[in-house]
Amino acid sequence: MAESFNPSAWREKLTDELLNNVTAFWLRHSLDREYGGYFNCLDRDGSVYDTTKHMWLQSRMVWMYSRLYNQFGGESAWLEAARLGLEFITRHGLTPEGRAWFSLTREGKPVFIQRKLFSECFYSMALDEYSRATGDEPLAAQALSMFDTVVELADNPHLLGRPMLEGQPQVNSLAVPMMLLCCAEQLAAGREDFSYTGRTDGWVEQILSHIDPRRKIVLENVKPGGDELPGSEGRLLNPGHAIEAGWFLLEHACGHDGGQYVQRALEMIEWSFERGWDGEHGGIYYFLDARNRPPVQLEWQMKLWWPHCEALYGTLLAWKISGREKFLEYFERTWDYIDTHLIDREHGGWFGYLDRRGSRTHQLKGGPYKCFFHVPRTLLLCVKLLEEIENR
Amino acid sequence: MAESFNPSAWREKLTDELLNNVTAFWLRHSLDREYGGYFNCLDRDGSVYDTTKHMWLQSRMVWMYSRLYNQFGGESAWLEAARLGLEFITRHGLTPEGRAWFSLTREGKPVFIQRKLFSECFYSMALDEYSRATGDEPLAAQALSMFDTVVELADNPHLLGRPMLEGQPQVNSLAVPMMLLCCAEQLAAGREDFSYTGRTDGWVEQILSHIDPRRKIVLENVKPGGDELPGSEGRLLNPGHAIEAGWFLLEHACGHDGGQYVQRALEMIEWSFERGWDGEHGGIYYFLDARNRPPVQLEWQMKLWWPHCEALYGTLLAWKISGREKFLEYFERTWDYIDTHLIDREHGGWFGYLDRRGSRTHQLKGGPYKCFFHVPRTLLLCVKLLEEIENR
Repeated sequence: MAESFNPSAWREKLTDELLNNVTAFWLRHSLDREYGGYFNCLDRDGSVYDTTKHMWLQSRMVWMYSRLYNQFGGESAWLEAARLGLEFITRHGLTPEGRAWFSLTREGKPVFIQRKLFSECFYSMALDEYSRATGDEPLAAQALSMFDTVVELADNPHLLGRPMLEGQPQVNSLAVPMMLLCCAEQLAAGREDFSYTGRTDGWVEQILSHIDPRRKIVLENVKPGGDELPGSEGRLLNPGHAIEAGWFLLEHACGHDGGQYVQRALEMIEWSFERGWDGEHGGIYYFLDARNRPPVQLEWQMKLWWPHCEALYGTLLAWKISGREKFLEYFERTWDYIDTHLIDREHGGWFGYLDRRGSRTHQLKGGPYKCFFHVPRTLLLCVKLLEEIENR
Repeated sequence: MAESFNPSAWREKLTDELLNNVTAFWLRHSLDREYGGYFNCLDRDGSVYDTTKHMWLQSRMVWMYSRLYNQFGGESAWLEAARLGLEFITRHGLTPEGRAWFSLTREGKPVFIQRKLFSECFYSMALDEYSRATGDEPLAAQALSMFDTVVELADNPHLLGRPMLEGQPQVNSLAVPMMLLCCAEQLAAGREDFSYTGRTDGWVEQILSHIDPRRKIVLENVKPGGDELPGSEGRLLNPGHAIEAGWFLLEHACGHDGGQYVQRALEMIEWSFERGWDGEHGGIYYFLDARNRPPVQLEWQMKLWWPHCEALYGTLLAWKISGREKFLEYFERTWDYIDTHLIDREHGGWFGYLDRRGSRTHQLKGGPYKCFFHVPRTLLLCVKLLEEIENR
């Protein structure tokens, strides 16, 4: 362990940030006690600027409040907050065919459905985590059944409703095997008879096929099997996402087969952090082009909160597993960026969006893709890991 | 006319920019002589970074090269360039049902179809403008027939394939009546028997319903009839788009019914320019929120090339029609911003994307939404208008 690194001081600092800043802000502002569920579009001061309820976020918040309750002391306010969302998503969140909507009105009427499978993933994870808090067996069965739907959609993407066209390349997007692995890890915990254990090696292989060790990069999109796709899509790097995939793999590898993927996962985190960090202005880029052609995403050079959340836990875990000082330096550098750019000490919570130079572009605390999830998840994961480090 | 304003000097400068910079760059780099059509993803130096052919842009470039040929001297290279794209889009651009794809591979295989009607609009306009260059009657008939499809899709949006859900608000988006009016103006020219002349008043009404004179704003999305929509969608301002709608209306009003909409159109341009201009760093914002809540678009504060193109012609036209000096000041201010931020005097062409402070975020000259269209269109429109001003 590095001389100057004090795990218990870090644990105390991050615990305070988790409970007294972030969780306090969201408990205070996000609960819709009138219609159930959560307000996820919160302005800087917590006021609601849009009442649309985005299902990714409703489900993620059910998961997060439940996880806090399950792993961090059983505070009844957390379970009540989880129940508020759980009742809303189970009452309003599903299509007649058993898929999950993407967004709902405040009262729960459907607004939009995506031609993707992520709403279903988060729904399954929410139900599972909540059922672990309450021992609700029928709910646990619904979580498993929704994962059947997720796997069916992943295996048969035409069921998502997007036409399959002749010129459309076959793409393996990093997000899909990542989410399948993440969701499977969630559901498999404590279940010896989990039906998809035999599939996880395949999803791990799919994740690993995104790594190009020669160029030390992790590509966001590859052909099935890992060959490079042509054009901008094939050159896309999403460093925060690759770091997240790295720590998913690290957790999976350590939990399962003696760690045969550990080196690869450590490389994913190291290479993506090195490539993604902006040496001039600090922070992790949102997108990059692997061959330095122009990224086509308008927001490519912005600094978002969530890649920094992924990097915080990913590098701490990588340091704990590898013992390499480099990862501890990444961890501290990431925290320093978060501390000076993202935490709102005036109104509470964390900001989400900065321009390349680190100036805030958005004052919002929650939006269609930001809620009570990445920040408390990374803080909780870091706190639990720091406890392990203290106790070893 | 303002003392210091010299229309012939401006005409010469903008003609030079149009022909010797912009058109020269795109003629040199965009023509795919092997497979037909155009490369629209061009890096700073004109090299191709992605060979996907986006149909909005393929059609817009056919229109632009044809329009240049028709209005500006009949250069055979322009007609040849137009034919290269025309043959590609008519061979590969349509679905079996007669809609237009959104994107194709380099060879012309379909990649993606949007659940919107704009591909069809630009296809119709491309065929019409080209048919005016060559007198190709069957092609002109195809253009008209595609506009039938456009109107059918606008009147029956469920045909676009997006599910109509209970919680989804009825939205009148500014883009749809604008494009219907623009396309109708294109097709009606010189056709006394144009079938949709009786519909244009309705589309004008829809555009006007986006104006809130009390707050001096133009809302991007309203309820049918003009009432305000709730949430971020209902507060969205897109100043460049509103300025473009303003000059569409000005042209329509002057051409048709003695100008009953002229004052409204002038206000659209004035209010949107005033609200959209960034007093601190210059340039026109991409998006704003009418009540200063957080815009949810990540790129809201970026400065894009096309709102400045719309403002350049929109303010010059507004000045010519109204005689108000304010519009001339807007015109000169817009040109100054373009001149110092967007024109690439080293490699040719114009840049497209800047951050709020005016630093370039992208080096590209063409991408999935930028091609040889907004820049040469505004320059050509300004040059023709300056000719009129000189001759009056």
